[in-house]
Amino acid sequence: MDDRFSSVRLEAFSDGIFAIATTLLVLEIAVPESGFDDLWQAIRDHWPSYLAYTTSFFTIGALWTAHHGLFRRLESADARILHLNLLLLWVVAFLPFPTKLAAEALRHESDDPERAAVLFYGGALLVISIVMTAMTLYAARRRDLLKEGVEPEELHELSKRIRPTAPFYGLILLLALVAPRAAVWLFLGLALASVIAPIRSGGRRPSAD
Amino acid sequence: MDDRFSSVRLEAFSDGIFAIATTLLVLEIAVPESGFDDLWQAIRDHWPSYLAYTTSFFTIGALWTAHHGLFRRLESADARILHLNLLLLWVVAFLPFPTKLAAEALRHESDDPERAAVLFYGGALLVISIVMTAMTLYAARRRDLLKEGVEPEELHELSKRIRPTAPFYGLILLLALVAPRAAVWLFLGLALASVIAPIRSGGRRPSAD
Amino acid sequence: MDDRFSSVRLEAFSDGIFAIATTLLVLEIAVPESGFDDLWQAIRDHWPSYLAYTTSFFTIGALWTAHHGLFRRLESADARILHLNLLLLWVVAFLPFPTKLAAEALRHESDDPERAAVLFYGGALLVISIVMTAMTLYAARRRDLLKEGVEPEELHELSKRIRPTAPFYGLILLLALVAPRAAVWLFLGLALASVIAPIRSGGRRPSAD
Amino acid sequence: MDDRFSSVRLEAFSDGIFAIATTLLVLEIAVPESGFDDLWQAIRDHWPSYLAYTTSFFTIGALWTAHHGLFRRLESADARILHLNLLLLWVVAFLPFPTKLAAEALRHESDDPERAAVLFYGGALLVISIVMTAMTLYAARRRDLLKEGVEPEELHELSKRIRPTAPFYGLILLLALVAPRAAVWLFLGLALASVIAPIRSGGRRPSAD
Repeated sequence: MDDRFSSVRLEAFSDGIFAIATTLLVLEIAVPESGFDDLWQAIRDHWPSYLAYTTSFFTIGALWTAHHGLFRRLESADARILHLNLLLLWVVAFLPFPTKLAAEALRHESDDPERAAVLFYGGALLVISIVMTAMTLYAARRRDLLKEGVEPEELHELSKRIRPTAPFYGLILLLALVAPRAAVWLFLGLALASVIAPIRSGGRRPSAD
Repeated sequence: MDDRFSSVRLEAFSDGIFAIATTLLVLEIAVPESGFDDLWQAIRDHWPSYLAYTTSFFTIGALWTAHHGLFRRLESADARILHLNLLLLWVVAFLPFPTKLAAEALRHESDDPERAAVLFYGGALLVISIVMTAMTLYAARRRDLLKEGVEPEELHELSKRIRPTAPFYGLILLLALVAPRAAVWLFLGLALASVIAPIRSGGRRPSAD
Repeated sequence: MDDRFSSVRLEAFSDGIFAIATTLLVLEIAVPESGFDDLWQAIRDHWPSYLAYTTSFFTIGALWTAHHGLFRRLESADARILHLNLLLLWVVAFLPFPTKLAAEALRHESDDPERAAVLFYGGALLVISIVMTAMTLYAARRRDLLKEGVEPEELHELSKRIRPTAPFYGLILLLALVAPRAAVWLFLGLALASVIAPIRSGGRRPSAD
Repeated sequence: MDDRFSSVRLEAFSDGIFAIATTLLVLEIAVPESGFDDLWQAIRDHWPSYLAYTTSFFTIGALWTAHHGLFRRLESADARILHLNLLLLWVVAFLPFPTKLAAEALRHESDDPERAAVLFYGGALLVISIVMTAMTLYAARRRDLLKEGVEPEELHELSKRIRPTAPFYGLILLLALVAPRAAVWLFLGLALASVIAPIRSGGRRPSAD
């Protein structure tokens, strides 16, 4: 028995962190006592929280999809993959904090905190996207780690679907300098597109598992 | 290896979110410092929190039962099921927020916040019920996704036990317009009935697994 | 495929709730800003929080041990077991609230809130103990649910090790009426004894799995 | 069927607690309302929280690596291992509290709370390291618990990589008496080294699983 890590356990540990980070996002949403005088209004006023929660939820959802697509093709993981995966989880488990900051900043009148919070939030999303792409491209070069019957081309294909998000995040971050509010909507759009895109191609190739 | 998702991993990720959302519900309950002067009284005064916690707990419990009933019959999941499942988890992970709102509103004297909070809460429960039904009915039409030996009729049967909750939620939401407090008790009753109902029929059919 | 539930999924869902409830207990512990003037003192002053955390942690640990002992002998679960298990999880997921109340009450000078909080807390522990015993005794009567090679006697044996906690909890609750503080220490002792006891006998019977 | 515990279930329960404790660490980070006037400044001012979060994250990451290395070599676990594992999880699930204390103390001007908080935090890390080492050394002596084909030498090898952390923690704790701030950076360095070290040797031995 050598020191390689079973991809099953890595995936189980990662899934645990994905599921918990996703669920914790909502703990931060709270209506202050004064909001109960006009609760409909207070519920409506919390739209930035729902927006930030939804964006982070579907970003992690798309990440889980890509992560599962990678790990079910791996027979085992080596040191590099374990390190990249820990780095990824480190940012994912941290995400509830920038998410909360972005939601709170969007409720403020002034533009300055909005810009700071959205850049901070988008920076975390960008790092997640880069690490996930790096991990997939690395695995594509390590044929010995793949399951029998899996071709490196499949991982290249997978990385082509994950990779475009990084430059998009870059562009949205530039936009956030002048229009932070619009940037958050684009982050949401990118997350939803990432959830939908990789699977559409699944419909095109209806071969057996 | 194609892009279909293994139903096992989907179920594991979903179970994680179900378990966490269930457990987080109780974090919101807190007795204020002043409550310690007469703690029995304070414990009793928190009945709306226990009611809301219990309702959401057994609603998720019933959902877990139906979700498990569906996924253990699936061999794999396609894009549509993955999307519907993410939509479902998005509402489930959000549920602690309306649960907390409902509990807090029930402790207020006035009727207005109660109505708003209960409608918001019931709306979330209604969406959960509709998405779960849609996912089951869709799977019943996709014979190629089912495990060998599973008949589409089993899924129709399953959907017949899930489906009635949606119109019930609609009726209770109408009632909530005039009697929000009674509506929460009916939500609890519906959750308990959903937990008990699908299983009673399990006793009627004692065939081997 | 009938409606029986696989014991594996039930156990996974239960383990999730056990792990989360255990971990959430510590979220409630916080040192107020003023405590930082003399932090050693503040850390020491929080002993009731550590006591309550430790008691609940090992109570859930002992419960997990007994729960695992039962479910690994089950082939499948019927409606009754699913219901009892949901009831059990409902109390376990609720436990962080009475745990927090007990910790806070022990920091108060007066006896009254202590008594109320400890009775409330001990009541939850008693219910957990009763439901776990009932579930084990019920399973011992349902030979058709057991895995091949498992004798009902093993479950009777198991229940004999779980059962004694219920009357003990009853006695400690009586004591809590006059000495609530001592009662919490006894709850801890009972939890530790339950963790240690069932396993000692494992050493006595070193047969193969 | 005897009373030995399957190492699979023990590992699943432990992984759950590791994943949750890791993720909860970030819940404690919050920017006060006043921080939104200059949010970049407020985000920068929170560096002690990021430092403490990162240290605890990679400490648990390294622990997970060692824990997985031990348990995948075990066929089953006896009473001693179950007890040591519960002890380990008891400290791990408690870790978010000293982590929070350390982060808060580092934001204070005065040295006294810093010293207390860092000693308390480092003490928890030291206990984790000692219990993990004890568990590995114990398992190395119990050949009957190991999977077929696993040599006790592998566990001695494993313990040699875990063991050095305990005396290091001791040294850093001594340093913390005079320079608590530097000590936290060393705790982080130790955690990162522990994550990287055990795996490097995995690259050296590229044998099949």
